[in-house]
Amino acid sequence: MEKIQVKLPEGKIIEVTSGQKIQQVASSQGVNSHVIAAKMDGAPVDLDRALSRDCSLDWISMNSPEGVDILRHSTAHLMAQAVQSLFPGTQVTIGPTIEDGFYYDFRREKSFAPEEIEKIEARMRELATLDLKVTREEMPREQAIGLFRGLGEEYKVEILRQIPEETVSLYRQGDWLDLCRGPHVSSTGVIRAFKLTGVAGAYWRGDEKNEMLQRIYGTSWPTEEALREHLRLLEEAKKRDHRRLGKELGLFMVSDAIGPGLPLWLPKGAIVRSILERYIVDLERSLGYQHVYTPQLARVELYQRSGHWDHFKDNMYPPMLFEDKEELVLRPMNCPHHIMMYQHELHSYRDLPLRIAELGTMYRYERSGVLSGLSRVRAMTLNDAHIFCTPEQIQSEAVGVLRLIEQVYRDFGFTDYWHRLSLRDPKDRAKFVDSDAMWDNAESCLRHALSEVGVVYKEALGEAAYYGPKIDVQLNDVLGHGETVSTVQLDFYLPERFGLEYVDTDGQRKRPVMIHRGVVSTMERMMAFLIEHYAGNFPLWLAPVQVKVMTVTDQQKEYAQKVFEDLTRGGWRAQLDDRNEKLGYKIRQVQGERVPYAVVIGDREVRDQTVSPRRRGGEQLKPMSLKEFNDLLHLEVTNKISHQQSAGS
Amino acid sequence: MEKIQVKLPEGKIIEVTSGQKIQQVASSQGVNSHVIAAKMDGAPVDLDRALSRDCSLDWISMNSPEGVDILRHSTAHLMAQAVQSLFPGTQVTIGPTIEDGFYYDFRREKSFAPEEIEKIEARMRELATLDLKVTREEMPREQAIGLFRGLGEEYKVEILRQIPEETVSLYRQGDWLDLCRGPHVSSTGVIRAFKLTGVAGAYWRGDEKNEMLQRIYGTSWPTEEALREHLRLLEEAKKRDHRRLGKELGLFMVSDAIGPGLPLWLPKGAIVRSILERYIVDLERSLGYQHVYTPQLARVELYQRSGHWDHFKDNMYPPMLFEDKEELVLRPMNCPHHIMMYQHELHSYRDLPLRIAELGTMYRYERSGVLSGLSRVRAMTLNDAHIFCTPEQIQSEAVGVLRLIEQVYRDFGFTDYWHRLSLRDPKDRAKFVDSDAMWDNAESCLRHALSEVGVVYKEALGEAAYYGPKIDVQLNDVLGHGETVSTVQLDFYLPERFGLEYVDTDGQRKRPVMIHRGVVSTMERMMAFLIEHYAGNFPLWLAPVQVKVMTVTDQQKEYAQKVFEDLTRGGWRAQLDDRNEKLGYKIRQVQGERVPYAVVIGDREVRDQTVSPRRRGGEQLKPMSLKEFNDLLHLEVTNKISHQQSAGS
Repeated sequence: MEKIQVKLPEGKIIEVTSGQKIQQVASSQGVNSHVIAAKMDGAPVDLDRALSRDCSLDWISMNSPEGVDILRHSTAHLMAQAVQSLFPGTQVTIGPTIEDGFYYDFRREKSFAPEEIEKIEARMRELATLDLKVTREEMPREQAIGLFRGLGEEYKVEILRQIPEETVSLYRQGDWLDLCRGPHVSSTGVIRAFKLTGVAGAYWRGDEKNEMLQRIYGTSWPTEEALREHLRLLEEAKKRDHRRLGKELGLFMVSDAIGPGLPLWLPKGAIVRSILERYIVDLERSLGYQHVYTPQLARVELYQRSGHWDHFKDNMYPPMLFEDKEELVLRPMNCPHHIMMYQHELHSYRDLPLRIAELGTMYRYERSGVLSGLSRVRAMTLNDAHIFCTPEQIQSEAVGVLRLIEQVYRDFGFTDYWHRLSLRDPKDRAKFVDSDAMWDNAESCLRHALSEVGVVYKEALGEAAYYGPKIDVQLNDVLGHGETVSTVQLDFYLPERFGLEYVDTDGQRKRPVMIHRGVVSTMERMMAFLIEHYAGNFPLWLAPVQVKVMTVTDQQKEYAQKVFEDLTRGGWRAQLDDRNEKLGYKIRQVQGERVPYAVVIGDREVRDQTVSPRRRGGEQLKPMSLKEFNDLLHLEVTNKISHQQSAGS
Repeated sequence: MEKIQVKLPEGKIIEVTSGQKIQQVASSQGVNSHVIAAKMDGAPVDLDRALSRDCSLDWISMNSPEGVDILRHSTAHLMAQAVQSLFPGTQVTIGPTIEDGFYYDFRREKSFAPEEIEKIEARMRELATLDLKVTREEMPREQAIGLFRGLGEEYKVEILRQIPEETVSLYRQGDWLDLCRGPHVSSTGVIRAFKLTGVAGAYWRGDEKNEMLQRIYGTSWPTEEALREHLRLLEEAKKRDHRRLGKELGLFMVSDAIGPGLPLWLPKGAIVRSILERYIVDLERSLGYQHVYTPQLARVELYQRSGHWDHFKDNMYPPMLFEDKEELVLRPMNCPHHIMMYQHELHSYRDLPLRIAELGTMYRYERSGVLSGLSRVRAMTLNDAHIFCTPEQIQSEAVGVLRLIEQVYRDFGFTDYWHRLSLRDPKDRAKFVDSDAMWDNAESCLRHALSEVGVVYKEALGEAAYYGPKIDVQLNDVLGHGETVSTVQLDFYLPERFGLEYVDTDGQRKRPVMIHRGVVSTMERMMAFLIEHYAGNFPLWLAPVQVKVMTVTDQQKEYAQKVFEDLTRGGWRAQLDDRNEKLGYKIRQVQGERVPYAVVIGDREVRDQTVSPRRRGGEQLKPMSLKEFNDLLHLEVTNKISHQQSAGS
């Protein structure tokens, strides 16, 4: 038999017989049981693959992101097998993995009932217990078409017809098979910790003109423990869902008469928003930002000039044509307005950096299907700023923005985040605007800025915008999913496009650099994030109602009224509950409302002229004078202290 | 000769011969020389009119609003006569009176040059000196058409063709005549104190499809003294013009690329606006208003339902039709959004009054010809609120709003204003929505509210909105022209139209009343008003830059820097001018910028570690410690003190 040379992950080179399966190499090398696939010369393959030439091998563990993705893909197959064995006549379509799980779309008239989902899950467990071998086979596309047509799988036939490859691969487990690129686990027994999590309708190819399919969602993990933790977090995320809490706490509403994706901020939500707005505006002003107000629309020509009309039109609102031929459009971004302000005067190098900031409302047309609460909307107000600076100022300006972000995250108590530096791919000449020197300088400035601030960051090659490199700050939610909240983007393109200039020390007119930056994102997204981050338990400085004063009986009405009035006069957002209700009922209500402090006034408090504050979490403070309580509140607001309950409570 | 009876103003009845002229009666009664016309049975007539039947007479003095209007109208005739005598071939069109003056539109190719205006004014004086008798004659319309056609006056012919009357009146003075209803002064010598004030182009009938005419503006007064005072105020108003000062002080800009009527607030203007916004929001919150944020657009159906679509469409922006058939329109008013919020929950009488407030941005389509600076714009942010209350709460709510207005005016130093109570005309059943009982109650509530607050007011019969009575607060500008800034409007119509309800004490569902109210108007109009009111000299609490620290020589740089930093840290909006320039130059600059305090740092201040503040008006304060200066600033801001310069300076 022919011998071939295989290079193992640690660099060791071994000699094996051609035709030997990767699985055998793995066994001979004693790799651990979490390995569920391999990479052959960098390409992921099944462990069942036979070796036929010299190559290098890497192991894919199901604890790695790549490995868990394969595990989930195989679990989707397992689910499809279970569905088709239980419900003959149901056709398969596609079944990809998604963040934390997978789904599979089936063609079936009826949607799946909860008890049917239970049956499917049970059948999946049976099929896993059978530990069916999963095998790959390759065949000409035409043969595969014939095969699936014979099985009555019209969707697979349609998919196959649109594949360019002449040879396709199929995966078979037991009597079930699917068209698939793979790789997969070697047998169904590897799949142990999974759960089906939901059902939904979905159009074939996502097009509402096509027929409706039945989608089943599931999740799959390497261990039962990981699955349990994920389900617990999922439960927690559901409890924190800003749409649910927003309704429960009276923070915002949507109205069919007004339109989808256009939320209304109710008084309590509006208080949080206005605190947030004043907080960031004041902070930015103290750092030399110049806040402005600009109109939320402009002539269509402005966006033709900026390039948005060509590249972003599908996400813009339709233009409005007036009687006098004026054609205006709601803005999708604030940059062109700030550019017009920059161009209003001739600038000298002495004016730079010029930091123009705005709580800028803008409009994006999003398909109604993706709209969600406050997090995906059609009108939004961005904490926006554009810094116009010289190339020499890029680094210090980037440092300034990164420090500002750090301070804001500290104030909100965000700790779970990371920085990503998106760079150009120097090989991709088509995607990125010109001038290597400009890119090199800019990228090095951002790298130095990140080091100067001392944050750890990941580099993402080729992920820069076409107009310049950028730093994104990814904030993780309770499920550990990152969301880009803050961003620092360099832009060489718009200054060129609008012919921006400044007069330098040598009297020459030069092109400034533009930095787009956002710190607290849009008011809508930040509010959605804050609601979920705090699980509705806003810290005192942000809480819509800060203190609720309540009586035990009508005996304390007078003193309670006085305490309430003193607090209100002191600028606190207080409420008075002097209803003739049981104290337990009142306390349950105030807990539901997530008010940071409940002040129960009993006979003792009346006698001693004190208050006995009780924190939202249940902590009972000792009786104190109103002055002491006031000082305590002040301290908590000044230091933006958050007495958070644990995620589990 | 037949005798007729004439009742004089004081009630005396005299007997005169039929055919006697009113002028003769006036002379016989010794009325003073300011009488320039009369009222016969209430209808204004010339003094030259012959009496032919029993009637009552009133005198019109040129010191009365009606009299000065006749004087101005006669001055317009005098101007037209002068123009046609100087520039033969120039056609007359129309020449009405306007606030404080008059204009006349002429058909002439060339516009009038300044030296031509001077010649016209000189000729007017000559014609006045000639004291030409002004006479009225009446003739059939057809005859008048022939007469004007003969004179080559095509516009008068066109006007005559569209007049329904069969008999028309003409006024003749010397060899000049004009088609006119009158009345007029009896001879040109009465016209003594006038001035031509400007020229402009104007389309015939205000329609840009018609030919351009040449308009000349003028003003005319009973005495030279009144004219001089008016011209002085006009000069003052020009100096205070918010468009001029807005540019000079860098408060706002307009951009052709963005569109007309859509101003951009530059950093300095934006500071004033954000102080104004926070001031009114905080004040309103302290009074129980609940501020919200709502989207600036909605489905077209919402405005169909509210009635705006039928009655206000011409002033609305065009709707936007989306791919998914959604049709949205930018809102012209905020009320329907607040109504949707009210309807979001079922309300009990305990929830009322509910005061929903918003800095609501809205959009009005105005013809480009009427747009002006910040005072007439196409997008504006209103200090808006809607109070939903029971009929019993109308009076106390109106009192609350009136008191709020009083406080705000006190804070801004507005003293020249008056209240107008607009009532229905009970005889006009078509104009006002139904229910006498509702109107009677509402009108009486507003009357009582005005008395309770103790303000003097004028009643305006028939001036109510169709949906309810209202109180307008008229604020006078430097020329004494009133502008409606604040308003309290009752509305029985929208609650009915939207079927609003609350559950009353008796468990019955009842209809609430809605009060639309505005205190500081739109941010745009208030800013325009404030700029002109303060002549750019914003009081310390509103000033974009509050303190400018300046060095005499480079010797003081270090200490000046320290003073500047201390002030900034203390939250003051400070600037540092440590340029190596002459102190006089620096001081002239800071005066031009209208900064309230200049702090000049000389050797003495460095030695004593003091500051010597100098007020905007020129007042030099004694040297003081930085702490003392800080206290002084605090006192001035807290009390919203305004060290205004006199209007003349």
